[in-house]
Amino acid sequence: MLRAEICSSRELSFLMEAHDGLSAAIAERAGFKGLWASGLSIACSLGYRDASELSWSQLVDVVDRIVDSSKLPVLVDGDGGFGNFNNARLLARMLRQRGAAGVALEDSCFPKMNSFVGEGHVLADVDEFSGRLRAVKDAVTDELVLVARIEALIAGRGMEEAISRAHAYANAGADAILIHSRRSAADEILAFVRAWQNRLPVVIVPTKYYRTPVAVYRKARISAAIWANHSMRAAAAAMRQVCRRIVAEENTASIEPNIATLDDVFELLKYDELARAEARYLPPPD
Amino acid sequence: MLRAEICSSRELSFLMEAHDGLSAAIAERAGFKGLWASGLSIACSLGYRDASELSWSQLVDVVDRIVDSSKLPVLVDGDGGFGNFNNARLLARMLRQRGAAGVALEDSCFPKMNSFVGEGHVLADVDEFSGRLRAVKDAVTDELVLVARIEALIAGRGMEEAISRAHAYANAGADAILIHSRRSAADEILAFVRAWQNRLPVVIVPTKYYRTPVAVYRKARISAAIWANHSMRAAAAAMRQVCRRIVAEENTASIEPNIATLDDVFELLKYDELARAEARYLPPPD
Amino acid sequence: MLRAEICSSRELSFLMEAHDGLSAAIAERAGFKGLWASGLSIACSLGYRDASELSWSQLVDVVDRIVDSSKLPVLVDGDGGFGNFNNARLLARMLRQRGAAGVALEDSCFPKMNSFVGEGHVLADVDEFSGRLRAVKDAVTDELVLVARIEALIAGRGMEEAISRAHAYANAGADAILIHSRRSAADEILAFVRAWQNRLPVVIVPTKYYRTPVAVYRKARISAAIWANHSMRAAAAAMRQVCRRIVAEENTASIEPNIATLDDVFELLKYDELARAEARYLPPPD
Amino acid sequence: MLRAEICSSRELSFLMEAHDGLSAAIAERAGFKGLWASGLSIACSLGYRDASELSWSQLVDVVDRIVDSSKLPVLVDGDGGFGNFNNARLLARMLRQRGAAGVALEDSCFPKMNSFVGEGHVLADVDEFSGRLRAVKDAVTDELVLVARIEALIAGRGMEEAISRAHAYANAGADAILIHSRRSAADEILAFVRAWQNRLPVVIVPTKYYRTPVAVYRKARISAAIWANHSMRAAAAAMRQVCRRIVAEENTASIEPNIATLDDVFELLKYDELARAEARYLPPPD
Repeated sequence: MLRAEICSSRELSFLMEAHDGLSAAIAERAGFKGLWASGLSIACSLGYRDASELSWSQLVDVVDRIVDSSKLPVLVDGDGGFGNFNNARLLARMLRQRGAAGVALEDSCFPKMNSFVGEGHVLADVDEFSGRLRAVKDAVTDELVLVARIEALIAGRGMEEAISRAHAYANAGADAILIHSRRSAADEILAFVRAWQNRLPVVIVPTKYYRTPVAVYRKARISAAIWANHSMRAAAAAMRQVCRRIVAEENTASIEPNIATLDDVFELLKYDELARAEARYLPPPD
Repeated sequence: MLRAEICSSRELSFLMEAHDGLSAAIAERAGFKGLWASGLSIACSLGYRDASELSWSQLVDVVDRIVDSSKLPVLVDGDGGFGNFNNARLLARMLRQRGAAGVALEDSCFPKMNSFVGEGHVLADVDEFSGRLRAVKDAVTDELVLVARIEALIAGRGMEEAISRAHAYANAGADAILIHSRRSAADEILAFVRAWQNRLPVVIVPTKYYRTPVAVYRKARISAAIWANHSMRAAAAAMRQVCRRIVAEENTASIEPNIATLDDVFELLKYDELARAEARYLPPPD
Repeated sequence: MLRAEICSSRELSFLMEAHDGLSAAIAERAGFKGLWASGLSIACSLGYRDASELSWSQLVDVVDRIVDSSKLPVLVDGDGGFGNFNNARLLARMLRQRGAAGVALEDSCFPKMNSFVGEGHVLADVDEFSGRLRAVKDAVTDELVLVARIEALIAGRGMEEAISRAHAYANAGADAILIHSRRSAADEILAFVRAWQNRLPVVIVPTKYYRTPVAVYRKARISAAIWANHSMRAAAAAMRQVCRRIVAEENTASIEPNIATLDDVFELLKYDELARAEARYLPPPD
Repeated sequence: MLRAEICSSRELSFLMEAHDGLSAAIAERAGFKGLWASGLSIACSLGYRDASELSWSQLVDVVDRIVDSSKLPVLVDGDGGFGNFNNARLLARMLRQRGAAGVALEDSCFPKMNSFVGEGHVLADVDEFSGRLRAVKDAVTDELVLVARIEALIAGRGMEEAISRAHAYANAGADAILIHSRRSAADEILAFVRAWQNRLPVVIVPTKYYRTPVAVYRKARISAAIWANHSMRAAAAAMRQVCRRIVAEENTASIEPNIATLDDVFELLKYDELARAEARYLPPPD
C-alpha cells in the first residue's frame, strides 16, 4: 500500500504528519492516504528536542499508537537509524513488528540535529550509510519500504554530492529517495529531480518551500510529498492561544466554540464501537 | 507547592490540563501555576478510549514527560487507581518517583468509563474505596497530595451520598475533595460546597458548567478549578482544520500564518540551551 | 505452529516457561518446541507479585523480548485479560502484534492472585468470562490460539463446575482448555480429562503434581503440558547460592566452574552473527 | 550511601550485579550493601547483545525495577552515556529520577561493543568524554555518584594513557575512577593503582582476574570491587541445566530439589506483606 503510494511515480501522493494516536486518527478522517511519523513532531510532543534525545524504543512505542489508531500505512522517520547498521536494522525489525509500512533513514551521524537548526550538519560517510541501508534491506526484505533520505543539500555539500549519494543509496537497496532542502524555494529540489531522472521514486518535504504549487511536483513526476509537522504546529498554536485566553479570562466560555467538543473526540475514537461491544460481550446487568 | 496551591482555601487556584510534554511546556509558558495530567486527554492523545484502556505504566510514562517538560507541580488523574488498594498504592509510588506532586483517585470501579459517557456509572463501595485512599496515604505519606474524587453526582446518587462519601474520604486521609458534576450549571457543585463547609479543600472541574464565572467559585471558597481537557480539544480542532485544508488545497501556504513556526517550537523546547551546552561541553571542531 | 502443537490431540507437547529473552533463548537451545510466557515468572523477574501488579503493557513488552529472542511459538499467560472483555481484546491484539502465537485467559477477576497463594480465589461469572473469550476471538480471529484456563478446581468449586465451564468456554470460541489444579497428585486433572472427553484439546500445568509420569498424560490424550516456572525457580536458586558464596568468600573463584562463561552467553546471543555482520556492513577501517 | 561505600577509600566495598527485580532482591537478601546494574547482564537478560542494542530508556526501565525491588543503593552501568554529552546528561537525569544512586560512564564511542568481545575497541577523545562527564556533573550535581570508567587498558592503549585519562576525568568532576582490564591477572590494575595514588577512589571489576584474593585489593586501598555479571551467569547455567534435564526426562521431579520453591520466591517478594495489607485495606468479605 505504502509501496504503491510512494514507489509508483505515476501519481503524486501526500503523507500527513502524525505524532500520536489522536493526530493519526484525525489525518485519516480528513482523507489522507498515508502518514508520516515525524521524528521532529514526536520529539516535540514528548518534550524532547529533535537531537536524538528520544530513544529508539520510545519512537517505536509512539509508532505503535499511530499504527493502532488508523488504518493508513505509516512511513516512519527513523532519523539515521539511531547508531550504526546494527541499530538501524534492529529499529527496522521493531518497526515492522509494530505494523509500520516503511522507514526513512537519513545519512546523518548519531546524535543528530534537526535539519532546520544550526549550521554544520555532519554527513555520514557514503559507504558507512550504504551499509546501514543494506543491513536494513537484508533484515526486513520487502516487508518495509526503505526510503533513503539525503541531507547533502542541508549540509551545504552541493548537488553533485546529492546525486552521487542517491546513486549509492539506490545501489544499496533503497526503494525511494527523499531529498531534503531548507531553502524557501523549490529550485534545489527541482534541480535534483531533473538530474536524477527518477531512477528511483523521489519523496520531498516542502516545509520551507511551501509556496510552490504541487502542480510543479506533479510535472516533475515526484512520487510523494510529506506535510511533515503541520499537525504538531497547528496543535501548538491552538494550545498556546487557548492557554493564554484561559489565563486572561479565568473562564473557558469564550473558547468553547473554537475547540473540539468532547463528543467530537468520542466520535473520532469510536466510543460508539465500545458501547456496541459492551452490549454484545457483557452479560446483561441484573 | 501543589499542596499550597490546592490545600489552602484562601485563594482559588487553576490547574491546566496537559497530556504530553508539549502541552505542559505551553501551559507553563502561558502562566499557569499547576498542571492536571488528565486521564481523558492522555488516553485520547494516545488513541485510547477513556475506559481503562491505557495501562497504569503507560500513564506513568506520560506523566514522566509532563513533569520533565515544565517546572510546574503536576496533579495526576489516577482514575480509580487501576484496580484495588494494592494497584492504587503501586501507582502512587511510581507517580511520586517520576516527580508528580499529587494524585486524584476517583471512587469508580475498574475498568472505568469516562464520566461524560453513557449512564449507569457504578460507584465503588465506600469502605473499599476508603481502603484505597488509606493504602495510598500510608505508601506515600506527605510526599504526594491525595485528592479524593467523588463520582456520586455523576452516577446520579444524590447529594446526601456525595457528602457522606466526602466525610468518609476525609477520614481515610484525603487532602482534598474533588467533586465532579456533568450538569451544565454549577448548582449541584455549589450545593455540595455549602453542605461540605470546607472540611477539606474542594477542587472542581468545570468542563460542563463552564458558563459560571469564577467569582462564584471564589465566593464559595473553592480551592482549585481544573481546566481539564481544553488543550487536547484545542489541539484536536486545530489539527482537524489543518488536515482538511491541506487535503482541499494540496498546499500549506494558506495555513502557515495560523500555525506555530518551527522557531516558536524550538524556542519553547529550549534549543538555545542545547546550543549553549554544545559550546560548553563539546570540544571545538578541528 | 502453536496451533499444531497444542490443538492436535494426537501427541503430547511441552511448553517451557520463559520470562525474558535469555530464558527464551536457553529453552530453544535445549530443544523445546514452544514457550510459555509465564505471568508468575515475568512478575517475579521484574520484582512484582503475581497479583496484577504488572501492567498489561509491561507484559506485552516482556513478550516482545521473548518472541524476539527465539524462533519458537509463544503462548502467553494473559491472566484474566487485565479487566473486562475490552481489556482482554486489547491485550490480545497487542500480543498478536508482537508476534505471540497464543494467549491463555483464566476465569479470574481483576486484580487476580496467584493460583498457589492463599484461599478463596474468586471466579469470574461464566457469562462475563465467556464474553471476554468471544471478544478476543472476534478481535484476533484465527491468528492467535485462544486457551481458556479454568480456575474452578483452584477455587474449590468442584468438578461439575469445571466441566460446565469448559463447555461454556468451548461454546465461546476457545481453541483449547487449560485445566489448573494445585493438588500434589494428578487425580483431579485426570478426572476432568475423563469427563471432558477431549471435546477440545486439554492443556495442563503440572507444577504441584509433578511426580506423575508423562506417560499418564499421553494415555489420557492430553495435548500439552506446561513447565510453568522452572527456569525462573532454577535461576532464583542459582543466584541465591552464588550471592551467598560471594558474600562468604569475598571471591568468585570457587563459583566460576558452576556458572556460564561469558563465551557461553555470547554464543547463545549470537555475537558471532554481529561480528559477521560488521564485516559485511561496516566499511573497512582506514 | 553509595557515596559512602565507594568514595571512602578506607574500606573495600562490594557491589553485586543485578539485572532485574528478582536478582536485586536476592542480592540484598544475601547481604550485599550495594548493586551494580550491569549493562551486559541487562542486555543479556533482555536478549540483546551488549553492543548498544538496548535503548537508554529500556535501561532506565530496568533500573526502575532494580531500585524498586531492594533498598540498596544502585550504581548503574551507563555505558558511554548512549551518545554525546547531551545524551549522557539526559540519561543521568532520568536515572536520578528513578532512584539510582550513581552512574558509571565509560570512555567508549556509540555504539559500543562489550569490553570482552573482539579487539580494536575505539576510545573516545579525552576532551569529548570529559565534556560528557562535566555535563552530567552539572546536570545532577551531587545527587548521583559519577564514576568515570577507563577503557584504555581494554583498548591496548597502555598505562600512561590510562593514568592521563584518569587525571582528565578527575578534573572533569568524576567522583571515582573505574579502571577496567581483561587480563586474567590483576597486575595491570595494581600497576594503575600504584601510579594513581588514590587521587580519586578506585573501583575495579575483577571478572577476568578473579583469582586474585581481595586482601590484595584491600592492601592497595581500592574502594570498591564489582561482581559484575555473576548472577546472570549463574542463572544462565542453571536454566540451561534445568531445560536440558526436563527435555531429557520429560519430568521435573528430579530437578525439584535443586530449584527454589514457589514459597521461597513468594517470601522473597513479600507476598506476606500483601496478605497483611489486604487485611488492613480491604473491607471484610460479606
